[in-house]
Amino acid sequence: MANATNVNDPLLPSTTADYSIVKNALKRRRLRRGSSDPNIRETHLLEQQHTSELLQNAKYTPENKFDLKPVYMFLAAYLGLGAFCFFLVRDQIDGRKKNGMLDAIYFCVVTMTTVGYGDLIPRTKFAKFLACIFVFTGMALVGFVLSNAADYILEKQEILFVKAIIHKKENGDNHDLMKEIEANKIHYKVLTTLGVILFLFLAGIFFLYFFEDLELFDAFYCVCSTVTTLGYGDKSFSTKTGRLFAAVWILISTICWAQFFYYLAQLYTERRQRSLIKWVLTRKLTVSDLDAADLDDDRAVSAAEFVVYKLKELGKISDEDVSLVMDGFRALDVDSSGTLTENDLLISSQ
Amino acid sequence: MANATNVNDPLLPSTTADYSIVKNALKRRRLRRGSSDPNIRETHLLEQQHTSELLQNAKYTPENKFDLKPVYMFLAAYLGLGAFCFFLVRDQIDGRKKNGMLDAIYFCVVTMTTVGYGDLIPRTKFAKFLACIFVFTGMALVGFVLSNAADYILEKQEILFVKAIIHKKENGDNHDLMKEIEANKIHYKVLTTLGVILFLFLAGIFFLYFFEDLELFDAFYCVCSTVTTLGYGDKSFSTKTGRLFAAVWILISTICWAQFFYYLAQLYTERRQRSLIKWVLTRKLTVSDLDAADLDDDRAVSAAEFVVYKLKELGKISDEDVSLVMDGFRALDVDSSGTLTENDLLISSQ
Repeated sequence: MANATNVNDPLLPSTTADYSIVKNALKRRRLRRGSSDPNIRETHLLEQQHTSELLQNAKYTPENKFDLKPVYMFLAAYLGLGAFCFFLVRDQIDGRKKNGMLDAIYFCVVTMTTVGYGDLIPRTKFAKFLACIFVFTGMALVGFVLSNAADYILEKQEILFVKAIIHKKENGDNHDLMKEIEANKIHYKVLTTLGVILFLFLAGIFFLYFFEDLELFDAFYCVCSTVTTLGYGDKSFSTKTGRLFAAVWILISTICWAQFFYYLAQLYTERRQRSLIKWVLTRKLTVSDLDAADLDDDRAVSAAEFVVYKLKELGKISDEDVSLVMDGFRALDVDSSGTLTENDLLISSQ
Repeated sequence: MANATNVNDPLLPSTTADYSIVKNALKRRRLRRGSSDPNIRETHLLEQQHTSELLQNAKYTPENKFDLKPVYMFLAAYLGLGAFCFFLVRDQIDGRKKNGMLDAIYFCVVTMTTVGYGDLIPRTKFAKFLACIFVFTGMALVGFVLSNAADYILEKQEILFVKAIIHKKENGDNHDLMKEIEANKIHYKVLTTLGVILFLFLAGIFFLYFFEDLELFDAFYCVCSTVTTLGYGDKSFSTKTGRLFAAVWILISTICWAQFFYYLAQLYTERRQRSLIKWVLTRKLTVSDLDAADLDDDRAVSAAEFVVYKLKELGKISDEDVSLVMDGFRALDVDSSGTLTENDLLISSQ
């Protein structure tokens, strides 16, 4: 199933705390360069402060502001409507039937996740048309809504996982650990997802082996065929308990697998981007580069101007983004000095 | 199928040309503010120059440097290996068989795209195991490699589409049009993909109706069931010609649909991001914001510093990105002045 939304884009602004990392790093470097005896104790204090800011941030990340309640309600409404519709046309559906309502829910989940075993098959035009509607809307639902929810839940799992590690290494250097986790966020996401997937995989095999009386290998084969949404249909859930289990298990498993592939792709993109940043930075700077990067025309490229220029070159930010923010800048720069100072704040608050 | 790679991230640096848009806009504003009689003619010339730069850029976009040849070769190798393997175990596959080699290719495509009709089913453990391997590797192949290729091809289609419009409006204002297209790139991608999808959809229905002797409604139902990778398997391709057609058509159609859902999600994310930018810009600036944004500690926030700060707040760029580029900045700032000037270039070239 498509899991396409860029679920990782923070959609609410983060606090300013994590921004201080770069600033502090810059200040520290200047400190080291300026004086022959840098105040190491102060630097250490700054770093400790930074760690607690990072930990605090973990509580206020945009993902945590994500509300799961509407997602569950939306999903329940969708499944309810689907089950109701397929229950109404239950006589127009052929195949291995067990229990009217249960089959309707099971059929709805098998359809919306695009597993499509084919153990239950719509016979009439109307039932076929209903299936078409539910597979398209189901794809969109899984892609947009549920993958966001999955990302949120996996993120929470990841925080627990990280806390467990920190707890273990209580005496170690928390700061370095937190920094490493921040830098390798997606690595940890991949690991967490892998853990959840393994659990679901084993749960599926266990269930099929003990409750559906499949051979161990066939249980493995059926699980593989289901989580990838392949669903040949030669092996599927045929008991009442099985279909109840399947309705929940298929929904969670297919989403988790899609999420896993998505994280893998992100990991790959991130790696490519980092090696690209290094490559762009080794490129020799020319006078025309300086001219292009010099946003305020003072014939000198400041650190921030350099960052904007290079991130633009890397395609990390677009002209659209920059122009929108520049409009905001000009609106705030009430004294038209070309910079924002406390003077601007004073004038605008009057 | 998962179509997860952020295919839109430019992976090679674009030319500096498009950066000039923001710079010119800034200069123009300053011009208008500074003098009572802005040189409108010069502004117009700049804009004309910008249009030609944009058109030139269209030729050198990173996507155009993407090489399709290895993708086709990889795909051919994968399908070749798959067909060979399934041909070897053809006696271990049950179902409606037609022609050894053709069935093997058809089965390989139906498996790797996760359609999984179930009209051909592996019977032995070995054949089942092979199917499991091919569905997982197939998912990865479609997600990572083929979706990138599809994005590239659709981008090319889009350029043709755009050129056709420009040709029609030859006398109109090309500059505004190009700008509009740049700003609504994803809108045009969605439109182009929709066009391709519609063509493939009709081609599928046409084929099933005339060559597979399905009723018109069943043809529609089978197409829906296939492109979504649902694949109940009650209606599928059962003739020799049908399976040959299906092997190509299924591969292209499922990828296009996944791409379509992906673009839709991008469109949604982009819209959310833009409204978020506006929201972040309306937030009142405080003294502590100024302090946090002031990268070079000159007690004034320059335009570029403001842009970096706000884009950071929006989550558009990460600390990782900024620190990597800052390291590059310090390496280039050989005279340690805190800015890059021609002096730095002079010293480093000595």
